[in-house]
Amino acid sequence: MTLPRIAFLGPGAIAAEHARAFRQLGCPLAAVMGPDAEAAAQFAKRHAVARSTDTVADIVDADDVDAVVVASPSGEHAGQALAALRGGKHVLCEIPLGLSLAEVTAAAEAAGDRIAMACHTQRYLPVVSALRARVVAGEFEPISMSITSAIYRRSNVGWTGERRDWADDIIWHHTTHAVDTSLWLLDDGIESVQALAGPADRETGRPLDLALALRTRTGRLATIAMSYNAIRPVSEVSVFGRSETARISNWQPSHAAASEPNDLLGKAAFAQAQAFLSAIAQRPGSWPSFRDVLPTYRVIQQVYDQIRQESSPA
Amino acid sequence: MTLPRIAFLGPGAIAAEHARAFRQLGCPLAAVMGPDAEAAAQFAKRHAVARSTDTVADIVDADDVDAVVVASPSGEHAGQALAALRGGKHVLCEIPLGLSLAEVTAAAEAAGDRIAMACHTQRYLPVVSALRARVVAGEFEPISMSITSAIYRRSNVGWTGERRDWADDIIWHHTTHAVDTSLWLLDDGIESVQALAGPADRETGRPLDLALALRTRTGRLATIAMSYNAIRPVSEVSVFGRSETARISNWQPSHAAASEPNDLLGKAAFAQAQAFLSAIAQRPGSWPSFRDVLPTYRVIQQVYDQIRQESSPA
Repeated sequence: MTLPRIAFLGPGAIAAEHARAFRQLGCPLAAVMGPDAEAAAQFAKRHAVARSTDTVADIVDADDVDAVVVASPSGEHAGQALAALRGGKHVLCEIPLGLSLAEVTAAAEAAGDRIAMACHTQRYLPVVSALRARVVAGEFEPISMSITSAIYRRSNVGWTGERRDWADDIIWHHTTHAVDTSLWLLDDGIESVQALAGPADRETGRPLDLALALRTRTGRLATIAMSYNAIRPVSEVSVFGRSETARISNWQPSHAAASEPNDLLGKAAFAQAQAFLSAIAQRPGSWPSFRDVLPTYRVIQQVYDQIRQESSPA
Repeated sequence: MTLPRIAFLGPGAIAAEHARAFRQLGCPLAAVMGPDAEAAAQFAKRHAVARSTDTVADIVDADDVDAVVVASPSGEHAGQALAALRGGKHVLCEIPLGLSLAEVTAAAEAAGDRIAMACHTQRYLPVVSALRARVVAGEFEPISMSITSAIYRRSNVGWTGERRDWADDIIWHHTTHAVDTSLWLLDDGIESVQALAGPADRETGRPLDLALALRTRTGRLATIAMSYNAIRPVSEVSVFGRSETARISNWQPSHAAASEPNDLLGKAAFAQAQAFLSAIAQRPGSWPSFRDVLPTYRVIQQVYDQIRQESSPA
């Protein structure tokens, strides 16, 4: 079959990551949309994308586009994914799929026979997918785990260090990663959610620190510490299994040399793009559909509700 | 002044650690008590302790003893500390001070003019005391932190690998360490406690895994993952501060070489014994009295109650 023609909603740093992956896989890069036409044009030039626009409809209703990568600010994800699916496009949507369970559910329900895939990209990190494979094969039986995931977002700066015109949200963005990875590795549904947040940031009104305790239906635990206050980033995962303890530091097995060269995000984005193409081509293989990841958003909605309720005046 | 004559309740591995420290500090080792007279006699011989007995009263009412180290099984701590204080002895009591807030409070109230000091020994680990000093001096302002603390206690084996005739309890023992260290570093009182536990162990009826979220009165967070299911032990602390991130691995700054020779427990036990002698000699300096650590036991009691309530049939 011919490879799908890919378009991008959002011309930011993560869109560039996707563009690199799909280009490597030989897909035509058809179009890119950004609200700032000039930035979109620059992205098109830099990544050999055929055309650029500042209008979402020019992508989601276009005849020269088969699949859309939603890589816009978080608040746009659900609406744009929905529009693209209704336009008959396959969709690969950045994390979070939405800023509420309701909008994520609506997007999931709009998929029909289209591929609607979530960028829960941590699943595609080699160390995570390898451990997950061992869990599914019954070689690793998890009992409990911890994740400490911390970056710096105290001022409103993205992961490339550039200032953003939209505010990141620790609950719906990075905590969604951590919860999804926990469910993925614990291989069970979450039954109990306990959440506490630090004070709201004065600039964004959102907390920058979270403490979570999760328990699955069979009693497996995940303890998740999240911070946007990390001057020095921290990414540590420990999984305590029946007959083994697995440790992951900075998304590498903790025995890996710290200096080992790597482009982990690039590798994961490539594997993710491959999975998306396989899904479109209806080849066998697992990939996180919008529906598959709804349990993660159910947990995140609970976290959000608990924290909102708790921080509102009594 | 003359150095106090020290006696030990319990002839186990941690008592040996205390004996080494007090011997180094020049204290006469007066007596040791163990329910197994033979084991007590062996301990006395090995550590140059003047006499041994299998009766608590022979220690707490004795004229040749000034201070008692309570290093018996956890369930005995509070009762023996109380008996020793009532016998007019100074007391250095192993963690946990008791298995309920009520018994810890009763012991604290019995202290009178005697020194009643808690072995919250993690405070004496050099990396912890150094960070605490910077917090108190206002050089390090913590916002949130995470602790992952995991060892193997699935079968009933102590830290030296020897089988125990009593069951360890993750809530009252190692979680007390983690909570105390969190309060110590966050330098604030805990306001909210959220706890989830894994299934109860079939042998002991107690959970082997815990997930905790704590928040202080000023909104500082501690996320604590505890496991007794660690085939490979894990000890990781991250403290996210206003202008710095501090990381501690295996109770060393995370930049320390993994192979650095150390006897951290020995060092901490020595510093702790020094603090106890200073307190008895009424020299200035801080040391955790039974009263000082009551806030930690208040948190632990809440954790215990939440988990008990949650695991009882609805």
